[in-house]
Amino acid sequence: MFFASDNAGPVPQQVLDQMVSANSGYLPSYGADPQMEQVTRLVREKFEAPDAAVYLVSTGTAANALALSTLSQPWETVFCSPVSHIHEDECNAPEFYMGGGKLTLVGDSDKITPEALIKSIEGEENRGVHGPQRGPVSITQITEKGHSYSVEEVQAISKVAKTYGLALHMDGARFTNAIVARNASPAEMTWRAGVDALSFGGTKNGLMGVEGVIFFDPKHAWEFELRRKRGAHLFSKHRYLSAQMLAYLTDELWLDLARRANENFARLKAGLETIPDVQLRGNPDGNMTFFDMPRALHKRAEAAGAVYYWDDVEGPMDQMIMGRLVCDWSITYDMIDQFIACLRSD
Amino acid sequence: MFFASDNAGPVPQQVLDQMVSANSGYLPSYGADPQMEQVTRLVREKFEAPDAAVYLVSTGTAANALALSTLSQPWETVFCSPVSHIHEDECNAPEFYMGGGKLTLVGDSDKITPEALIKSIEGEENRGVHGPQRGPVSITQITEKGHSYSVEEVQAISKVAKTYGLALHMDGARFTNAIVARNASPAEMTWRAGVDALSFGGTKNGLMGVEGVIFFDPKHAWEFELRRKRGAHLFSKHRYLSAQMLAYLTDELWLDLARRANENFARLKAGLETIPDVQLRGNPDGNMTFFDMPRALHKRAEAAGAVYYWDDVEGPMDQMIMGRLVCDWSITYDMIDQFIACLRSD
Amino acid sequence: MFFASDNAGPVPQQVLDQMVSANSGYLPSYGADPQMEQVTRLVREKFEAPDAAVYLVSTGTAANALALSTLSQPWETVFCSPVSHIHEDECNAPEFYMGGGKLTLVGDSDKITPEALIKSIEGEENRGVHGPQRGPVSITQITEKGHSYSVEEVQAISKVAKTYGLALHMDGARFTNAIVARNASPAEMTWRAGVDALSFGGTKNGLMGVEGVIFFDPKHAWEFELRRKRGAHLFSKHRYLSAQMLAYLTDELWLDLARRANENFARLKAGLETIPDVQLRGNPDGNMTFFDMPRALHKRAEAAGAVYYWDDVEGPMDQMIMGRLVCDWSITYDMIDQFIACLRSD
Amino acid sequence: MFFASDNAGPVPQQVLDQMVSANSGYLPSYGADPQMEQVTRLVREKFEAPDAAVYLVSTGTAANALALSTLSQPWETVFCSPVSHIHEDECNAPEFYMGGGKLTLVGDSDKITPEALIKSIEGEENRGVHGPQRGPVSITQITEKGHSYSVEEVQAISKVAKTYGLALHMDGARFTNAIVARNASPAEMTWRAGVDALSFGGTKNGLMGVEGVIFFDPKHAWEFELRRKRGAHLFSKHRYLSAQMLAYLTDELWLDLARRANENFARLKAGLETIPDVQLRGNPDGNMTFFDMPRALHKRAEAAGAVYYWDDVEGPMDQMIMGRLVCDWSITYDMIDQFIACLRSD
Repeated sequence: MFFASDNAGPVPQQVLDQMVSANSGYLPSYGADPQMEQVTRLVREKFEAPDAAVYLVSTGTAANALALSTLSQPWETVFCSPVSHIHEDECNAPEFYMGGGKLTLVGDSDKITPEALIKSIEGEENRGVHGPQRGPVSITQITEKGHSYSVEEVQAISKVAKTYGLALHMDGARFTNAIVARNASPAEMTWRAGVDALSFGGTKNGLMGVEGVIFFDPKHAWEFELRRKRGAHLFSKHRYLSAQMLAYLTDELWLDLARRANENFARLKAGLETIPDVQLRGNPDGNMTFFDMPRALHKRAEAAGAVYYWDDVEGPMDQMIMGRLVCDWSITYDMIDQFIACLRSD
Repeated sequence: MFFASDNAGPVPQQVLDQMVSANSGYLPSYGADPQMEQVTRLVREKFEAPDAAVYLVSTGTAANALALSTLSQPWETVFCSPVSHIHEDECNAPEFYMGGGKLTLVGDSDKITPEALIKSIEGEENRGVHGPQRGPVSITQITEKGHSYSVEEVQAISKVAKTYGLALHMDGARFTNAIVARNASPAEMTWRAGVDALSFGGTKNGLMGVEGVIFFDPKHAWEFELRRKRGAHLFSKHRYLSAQMLAYLTDELWLDLARRANENFARLKAGLETIPDVQLRGNPDGNMTFFDMPRALHKRAEAAGAVYYWDDVEGPMDQMIMGRLVCDWSITYDMIDQFIACLRSD
Repeated sequence: MFFASDNAGPVPQQVLDQMVSANSGYLPSYGADPQMEQVTRLVREKFEAPDAAVYLVSTGTAANALALSTLSQPWETVFCSPVSHIHEDECNAPEFYMGGGKLTLVGDSDKITPEALIKSIEGEENRGVHGPQRGPVSITQITEKGHSYSVEEVQAISKVAKTYGLALHMDGARFTNAIVARNASPAEMTWRAGVDALSFGGTKNGLMGVEGVIFFDPKHAWEFELRRKRGAHLFSKHRYLSAQMLAYLTDELWLDLARRANENFARLKAGLETIPDVQLRGNPDGNMTFFDMPRALHKRAEAAGAVYYWDDVEGPMDQMIMGRLVCDWSITYDMIDQFIACLRSD
Repeated sequence: MFFASDNAGPVPQQVLDQMVSANSGYLPSYGADPQMEQVTRLVREKFEAPDAAVYLVSTGTAANALALSTLSQPWETVFCSPVSHIHEDECNAPEFYMGGGKLTLVGDSDKITPEALIKSIEGEENRGVHGPQRGPVSITQITEKGHSYSVEEVQAISKVAKTYGLALHMDGARFTNAIVARNASPAEMTWRAGVDALSFGGTKNGLMGVEGVIFFDPKHAWEFELRRKRGAHLFSKHRYLSAQMLAYLTDELWLDLARRANENFARLKAGLETIPDVQLRGNPDGNMTFFDMPRALHKRAEAAGAVYYWDDVEGPMDQMIMGRLVCDWSITYDMIDQFIACLRSD
């Protein structure tokens, strides 16, 4: 009963097979391998973006920090949610890669609204050289709290960004879960909606450690390549990154894995909704949620072997705990049903 | 009728005289001039801090960014007010000098409260390497909104900082106005209350462009000297900085100038309180305030030659403007009385 | 006949097997996996360093840049060879990770001598804050030109570094080739000889993309962990890095691979020495060399399918080319013999 | 008898007068003062560059580091002399401001030759993303060893830079001494010869602490303004910088001061040439030189009160010292004659 994260499980057999298949002979290094050519072709096809610049790195933080620094200047500020991964979970990597840039926290929710974004952008008013300059907007799809943006919502945010001449970055660590949840095409959810650069997650959706970075305008390509090298994120034996991403994009494995994760989560969610004492936070639609639960129930689940992140809730509700449940592609209906049964069993 | 800023007026004759007096013969460069020895001695005396490390730089942003970077690591975050100069008015200089650090905004006011500080520090919870690490606390004395901290308030903030093992920095661009307003000694307001480093303002209080940086624990001295040089803030003909600060500290000119500025402001404030249509924001006690005023009144003042920063107030109060009034040492009671008379005259 | 690089070949079966074996169940992320525990234990055993701090990253540039930045300050300069990888092949990654540090080039050879090192260190004379401050010394073992340092040579360099209070870093991208070539123990070649931090190469010696970073004094551990995270080099599914390094250290695979590479190279070198027209540069003793060869011979080799880096030699020798030959563990005696035969065949 | 530096003497009366004259009333801050308008107009006139972007900062290191960072990217390397101030005397400020850039040392002399420059640029060969990218060329006029470039020499260097598409920066800490020595116009020595940005020295030539930064192509203006602010080098009471530079450019004071310094030096040099035991290094033509002198003579000069930088000469010449003599505008023929007499007197 493992619901702690989607970065702790195994990878599917297809990924291993492709790595074994790649493990033969002598191949050009540093991304010039033929597998990468296929990856680039496949990404362009699937995103209907024949000119897109496509790169691979090994961590989501690298994808985000490198993409944002390519889209910004050191004297700018990135507009993002207060719970965004780039703000809370990257130990100042964006500020480091930007060369000393800033993040401006928009609103008080995981999903940025156009209204909150306008307020934040206007808040960084035009004071000449004195204040930080307005930089790119970054949204997370699916957010860190388990909510996806609809295509229309991305369009609305993009419209605000474009009004102010700002670029739009999407941290898509769980991008595939989002397009599956929203039944949207990759193109609709990104460049057609105004996204300039995508951190295209692979690791949380079944790869060992590969994330794509996609610039829909290839003018950023060379600068990104320099930044990737200088950030020490260019692999010599790049074929083993390529192979993973190639497996991912072949026979729609990426969509299949995200569908399984989302279906797992849907079953979990449906089960939780039958437990009156458990309250989900918000209306999650991907593969994760935050929730509130009585401490006694939590102790029972834990004793039964359920694993998830949790913390005390302070204040008048101190008999409660707050936790997070994540389903990756690999967990089973059995695990889910067992967990729900355990919560229900009194 | 100039109330726009305390960085736009002339310097007192004593400062010019001291510079002229310093303008003779050949003297050691880079801070080894004999005037600087006197400055160091005087600062240590006045702050009752015989071991303090004392430096001069030419801008307040340099003082803040260099002091904070000396007290912090690039993976840390500085706790400060959302309206602090370091956040709003330094174009990411602190993040640049810190090597890619972060600022965490505490509460929603210009004065940090211990409660808000605890909440922010706890918010940067201990998540191992993933989140930003907790770094120094920085408060502005007098704040950017014109309010001073009492000695007790500084002590309370310091107590929180010390509890978490964090250093305390004070941006004292208007420090002298504060100790005059609070009738506190320099030592009480700083190291005795737990302040580790002070940006000791000179420019807004009558110098051409000199700020002190004082570390009450001299262990930071050598690192600061390297950071100052590498930041290009070490003057070769340092004597002209020293001379200004020497004049400032001689015959208590610094206190005298701040007293004049505060008295000017007190007269202005008393006058404004007789104008029912003008509302001060908060309870300012130094040499500046923000205020709300009907647009018609503002237009009259402007027409009469009053100069101050102002902006439209949006929303239902759109017949109002919001502005800022600052008194430096050099303005006259005549100017003030004329301004009040102009506002009153209907 | 592939002699272009040791970063272009396949990985041995044991590495794949260990990754497959690691691909099961749910494991703690970010380096807390049990495989990493085994790796740490094995590294400490093999280096006879029970307190060493041991980390994994995915590129050699990351290992070097992170290790050097942990050992230095932004105002310091790193002493290294003019042909060192950190200077020539990392696109300013060390300077970036150091926060704007400098590299000082020592001597004019790939191997640093104590005399040249003293001269360089003295050249960065003590000018107070004005010049760069002296920082760590970095040597490459085996060098970029294919020469290894003896234990005594490392000791001599270390002695100089210690005299000036400087740390010693070893870029060991081909470390295992060196200890095999020199028949030295890991401990003798590193901490016993005064090395403070080692970039412990795995990728060039048969892994997909894993390098160790070893600090023999664990006081650097926490800072390194923060730097690794902030550099975006901390893997969530760290088990796949651990598994590679675990395979590497199991049953002495690392030594076995290096021995095969060195033996391949020894056979190649012996063959080349029978070709009068081919001149090796220096006296290579690991798994690579630079060489000079008549253009006609080169064309014949190329036509026969030999692959290696080469360049024109300018000047009076313009009928010559200069090239580099590298043997990794995977090439065969057949390839080598075929290449030699091709060169000999007239 | 003070020959130690041109950063240790007083400023001329005109500079003081202009500062006193500027010390009146309330003026716009941050460079919007009317004096700065005059400065910009005068610089443009004197350089025959009606579109030039003109800025003031307070140290030469700031001028250099800000100018170079504006002309470069963090992954580039700046080509400069091994004895250049930016390499030897700025404690990594250029690397810091560039965001982690590199300096490549050209040749082994203070004056860069086109041949050495080509060799260095070609040495940073095109290796894709792996090596540092070629960045701007920076020359010092007059060099740190007291030699000036002729207009033709600047043209020749510029031609090489332009061939490779690289910008040309001139560190003109002693620029005015150079144009006086070479009898060249400001325009001839800069933009007409291909210089893109000039650090226009004021401090060593009689100001308290003001350097100009001139971009002959104003496209760099806004970026420079942001970099200056973020580097904490934007003065609020900017009028006191403007006033100094205004005095400098009024009635050709700048040329007059440099002429006096050069004439002082010419007299000193002529005197030294009559002392057989003293050898000048190179053929200095501005206001400074390095020299070799027997230790006994040096001791006599020192005892007589002569002040200059000196160091032991090591090796077989250990009865010699090596020193530096600098003349600023303020020293007198008496001092010079007294010094020469002292050296001659046996």
